[in-house]
Order: sequence, then structure tokens, then C-alpha cells
Amino acid sequence: MALPRTATTFAPPVMEARRWLAEARLSDDMPLINVSQAAPVDPPPLAMRQEIARIALEEPQAHLYGPVLGLTDLRDEVAAQWLTAYGGTISSGQVAITSGCNEAFCAVIASLLAEGDEVLIPVPWYFNHKMALDMTGARAVPLATGCDLLPDVERAAALITDRTRAIALVSPNNPAGVEYPPALIGAFFDLCQARGIALILDETYRDFHSSDAAPHDLFTRAGWDETLIHLYSFSKAYRLTGHRVGAMIAGPVRLAEAEKYLDTVTICPAQIGQFAALWGMRNLSHWLAGERAEILDRGRAIREGFDPLAERGWRLRGAGAYFAYLDHPFDARSDVIARRLVSEAGVLMLPGTMFTPEGDPEGQRQMRVAFANLDAAGITTLIERLAGFGG
Amino acid sequence: MALPRTATTFAPPVMEARRWLAEARLSDDMPLINVSQAAPVDPPPLAMRQEIARIALEEPQAHLYGPVLGLTDLRDEVAAQWLTAYGGTISSGQVAITSGCNEAFCAVIASLLAEGDEVLIPVPWYFNHKMALDMTGARAVPLATGCDLLPDVERAAALITDRTRAIALVSPNNPAGVEYPPALIGAFFDLCQARGIALILDETYRDFHSSDAAPHDLFTRAGWDETLIHLYSFSKAYRLTGHRVGAMIAGPVRLAEAEKYLDTVTICPAQIGQFAALWGMRNLSHWLAGERAEILDRGRAIREGFDPLAERGWRLRGAGAYFAYLDHPFDARSDVIARRLVSEAGVLMLPGTMFTPEGDPEGQRQMRVAFANLDAAGITTLIERLAGFGG
Repeated sequence: MALPRTATTFAPPVMEARRWLAEARLSDDMPLINVSQAAPVDPPPLAMRQEIARIALEEPQAHLYGPVLGLTDLRDEVAAQWLTAYGGTISSGQVAITSGCNEAFCAVIASLLAEGDEVLIPVPWYFNHKMALDMTGARAVPLATGCDLLPDVERAAALITDRTRAIALVSPNNPAGVEYPPALIGAFFDLCQARGIALILDETYRDFHSSDAAPHDLFTRAGWDETLIHLYSFSKAYRLTGHRVGAMIAGPVRLAEAEKYLDTVTICPAQIGQFAALWGMRNLSHWLAGERAEILDRGRAIREGFDPLAERGWRLRGAGAYFAYLDHPFDARSDVIARRLVSEAGVLMLPGTMFTPEGDPEGQRQMRVAFANLDAAGITTLIERLAGFGG
Repeated sequence: MALPRTATTFAPPVMEARRWLAEARLSDDMPLINVSQAAPVDPPPLAMRQEIARIALEEPQAHLYGPVLGLTDLRDEVAAQWLTAYGGTISSGQVAITSGCNEAFCAVIASLLAEGDEVLIPVPWYFNHKMALDMTGARAVPLATGCDLLPDVERAAALITDRTRAIALVSPNNPAGVEYPPALIGAFFDLCQARGIALILDETYRDFHSSDAAPHDLFTRAGWDETLIHLYSFSKAYRLTGHRVGAMIAGPVRLAEAEKYLDTVTICPAQIGQFAALWGMRNLSHWLAGERAEILDRGRAIREGFDPLAERGWRLRGAGAYFAYLDHPFDARSDVIARRLVSEAGVLMLPGTMFTPEGDPEGQRQMRVAFANLDAAGITTLIERLAGFGG
């Protein structure tokens, strides 16, 4: 008897980490530093909350079903702003709104994959991508990355089989905190186009990219929408994690297939969150620029303050957007270290074992730090606590 | 090459119907009567909209991630109110909140089914159930119903194979508008328990049941949570369709499996809708009783006003909760009739072909009327227009 879909995958890592927390004895003089989840801890700015309140009172439609693929105005706005940011050609008929970016990924793979089909994902991976592939009955094929945590195009080419339907990249990367160079993203697009498979490019953290230039030129490529599927989340930029609003940009044929999935699973994205995202896009660009500058400062603080940890054998592998990715220096598995860090250092971070195939020795050395919620003082304290942890 | 998941199922019927509408030429003197979708057309009452506005301003948590299985207070409230309504034993650890009731169904079948496994669903079926099963790689086994549109336990027993994992019932039924008697629901539970399969019972329309007594006694059965999975939606009761809030009640082991799916697809239900549902449960019981009385009146108006249609050969098969289910008298397929009704009678309803297996002669005779939004005058007009339609 084959396993049911959910039994083919693991329990949500973030829940697992919360259980560690519940079991840990935390001392009062060492309040927890929680760098386990990539999520804002503050609500949206007051002006947006006031706008949401206005919508709740004055827009009846905000409480009722909307189109499966999202509000027309929001699709239009995404198309227009993406065109400015990336160049090329993007129309609102190539944009769909989803109940968060995870659902966009799930809808995409449902439109691409049959039982046993394969998708290449760089290691370390975003665990919900791995879980989604497992539960779809697909095979997540690990694509090893080098010391720089960047995937290699030739290595990927060698892994493509007649069952491969897509390569899924995340840039800026979760969990590795690295930004994929435009040329690398372009080379993956060329590979996918040449081999007739899809390139899924999850740019959830694009608003916190360190470059002021476009992160890639894919939307300028002729016929991009037969190969590229771009994913985005409004959660991080506008602190709307609790509203569940994401997006996908792809060809109309792909969107019509995704529409079947989206209609069946959630019928439409939550309307009030879509109204909020639209208002944010139209009114918060200045505020968002400030948020980005702050996050970039925090990444810089991690890189520049890392010496005390480097002296103790820690290694900084990546630090960008919301994440730093570290090698720990201890002779123990990262998941064991992570549990001990909760009780002994008052730090909750996720171990590399949650982002890598079972038994992978790399994952056993690695730790992810979702540092976006730590200000400069918090980052200093984090580094002090890690430096004081004996392993 | 096997078909991708979404290619194994059909396009969303409601979208298809909207396309008919877009293509139809409607005359100004015959405004459309839209009885195609089971959805409130008015927003929640003002007091609830004011509460949502307050939450948006004053509850930071309403904008941020919440627990995968939903707000604790809402789970507690569901457990308490269900206990009052059904008796038996229900604890909040057996309750999960989902991004609408469709997602609850999808999470449940992901926790039950592997590729090629089977679920029995009475015909006519709720099309999103059929689509969800298709896209999961499962087989939806049609369970024919009799003239009364009720499923038969012995017929179901004969269809169970070693691949059957569940029977999925909807009561009050969408699309058939019939209420399954408590004894029938009990007999299905007994069958499922005896055969070691799950009983999925979708009670989305429970708030509009015509009986003041409990609709079944399943929660009083010993060990119910090893067999029963109960589904519910807050959308209809509180006019929250645009907020995407549903629920499932099942055993903790089942919920832990569903949690993997829910975390991967949507991370958490939209928070503001959960706060709203909780407030509705605590404050709108009197209002909801009025809504129910009104819907029951409308069902009565359909039944009592049906003579002019009966005289023209129409037959009323079921009329309860939001739906009436009809046989049309014409020598043409119901989907052809439905398209003509838009242009010629200004009525949009869904044909039985959308709720039945391809080629099913029953479905070609049947039509679903989602009458809940029509007041008494609207129902009279609807009947007049159908009576005047020549086929």
C-alpha cells in the first residue's frame, strides 16, 4: 500500500522549531533571540492599517468572492511596476494573484508535473518547495551548490532526464542568503529553454536585493513566457504575512491551468489583503525603500561583525536579503546544535538539516539565521551569544 | 508521457459560466437573474465590518503569520459550539481552521490518498471535490443516487475496493439541495468504520438546515475521530466568502498530517478573516437565525411556486439550503439549455453536466439553481421566465 501524499514528506520545520522552544527552559536574564522564521514582527505602517479599516467598512466587495486569478487592478499594477523594474514585455494577462507565494509554487507544479516527474532544486533548498514536490508525487532532484552556494548550470544540465519538467531557483536565496548574478539566472533560462523545461524563479525577497539594477533580464527575452514562471510575495515588502497574498507571472496557457488548481484549493485569494497590497504598491514605495536600506544595513552588520565568530571557527557562507547562512565549527549535527542553542544561548535558528537531503554532511554543518528582525544591537548580541557558545 | 496534475481535470465550471455570460447578449428590459454561484451578494452586517476595521487598526497580529492550524480562540469556539449543536465529545485539539472549506477537503485527501487510490462520491457531485481528486491522482468513484438524490449504503458498500480510502458526503447537499437524514449519515458512518475507511462529511450549509435538531449523532459515537472528518465553512453563515475561512474537525493524527499540507500551500489561514469569524460566532447567532429563516422561506417559495413549471414538464428533484435541483423537460443537453437560458431568458444557472460524469444521461437532464440570493419576488420572476422558455 503506497503512502498517502502527506506521509511522503516531513513535518513543517518551523512547527518543529516551535516545539523545541516549548520544551526549552529559557532563563529570564537571556530573552530569546528568534531568528528562525523569515517574517516581519511588526504590522504594516499605520496608514496602511487605516486604509484596510476603510476598505473593510466601505468596500462590500472586499468581503465577497473575487476572481480566481485575483483583482484586475492588482494584476495591472504588478504588470506595470514589473515592467519598470525589469524591462521587456509583461501584460496583466500574464499575472495571477495567489493566496501567498507558496500557493503559487504549488499551483505551478500541479500544472507541470505528473506522478514521478522531476524538478531540480539547488541544495540547500526552501523546505516548503521540497514538501510541495513530495506531496505532488514528484521527485525533487537535489542540485548541489559550490562553496559560494550558487548552482552550476553544467551540473544542472547533466541531471536533466526525460522526466525533468522544471528547475526551481530562489533569488535572493532562502535559506542561503545569496543573490544569484543576472548572468547565472540568464544561463539557467537558456538551459531550460533549450531543453524545453520550465524555469521557476521565486523572487519573494526581490524588494531587498542589494542591487539597484534589474536582478535579471529574462522578461526582455523573446517568448520568455513559454519558459519562465516568476513567483513573488507581498508578505515581506508590506508586512502582510497574515493576509496571504502572492503572485505568479507566466504565460496565459500556464495561468489557465493554474486557475484550475487555485479554484479548487482556495477559490480566490483573500480580497482584503489584495486591496491592501494594491494600496501598498501605489503608496508605500518611499517607505519600502527605507525598509530595504535598513535590511541591507543589517546584512552589512552581520558581515562586518563576524570576526569574533570566524575566530571560533564559524564560517559565513552567505548574507543577503533576510538570511545569513553559516557553517558551525562543532563536532555535532546542526540539528543537535540548534536545539542546544535554544537552552544554552537563548537563540532559535534552523539547522541545515532542514534544508538538505537526509544524511547530507553539508546540512549537518550549516545553520540558517533569519536576521531581518534584528537591529544592529540585536545582531551584536546574537554574535556575542554564538561566540560564547561552547558547542 | 503522463498528463500533469491540472491537465487531468476540467476548467472551473463557475469560470466557464462567466464566459457564457460575457458572450451573451442581454437585453436591458430583462436584467440577469444569476443563480449560478452559492455565494452571498451582500457584505457582512455593519457591526461585523466595524469590528473588522477595529481589528485592522488595533490588532497587530491580524496582519502577521498565525498558527498553521488556525487561531486557538477560534478552534476553542468551534469545539464549544459544535458540542452544543451535536452533543458528544469534541475538543479544540480536534479542530483546525483552513483557508476556506475547499482547502480543508484538499488537505484531507492529501492525508488519505496515494496515486490511484479511490474515494466514493455521490452523483451529482460538488465539482471542486471531483477536481481535487483528479488533481491528487486519485480516482473519484461515482456513487449513483436514486430519484430522491440520496446515496444508498448498500450500493456504496459494493463499490468499496482495496484501494478505497474514503466516502465523501455533502449535507445539506450541493448541488442537489437535499438534506441527508440522520439515520442515513449514521449508516454511512457504520459502513466506513466497519471497512476501515474515512467518512468525509462536508457540512458547509449546516447553518441553513431545515431541522432544529442535530443533523446527525456522529460526534456521540465512541472513537468517532478515527473515522469521521467533518468539514465546515464560515463563508455562507457570516458572508465572509472573500476572507477564505473554513474548518475541519478530525482526530489529532489526521490534523498533524493535514498540517503538512496546509503549511506548504498557504502557511496559515488569513488572520483577519479568522478574527471576523470568531466575532461572528460570539455575536451574530441571533442575526444568523434570521438569515436561516429567510433562506428556508425562499426554499419554501420555490417548492410552493413550482406548479407553473411542473405543468411544462420541469421536475423539482431537491430544494434545500442554498440549492434547488431540477430536471428540465427539453430534448437537449442541459449545458446547451443553460447557455440558451442566458440569452433567451436572462437566467444563469449551472447545468447538471457540470456535476456528473461525462456522458451521464442524468446530468444532461439536470439543472442547479443556487436560489439563496433571490427574494420571493425574484423567485416568482425566475419561475415565470423558466415557464416562458420554450426550449
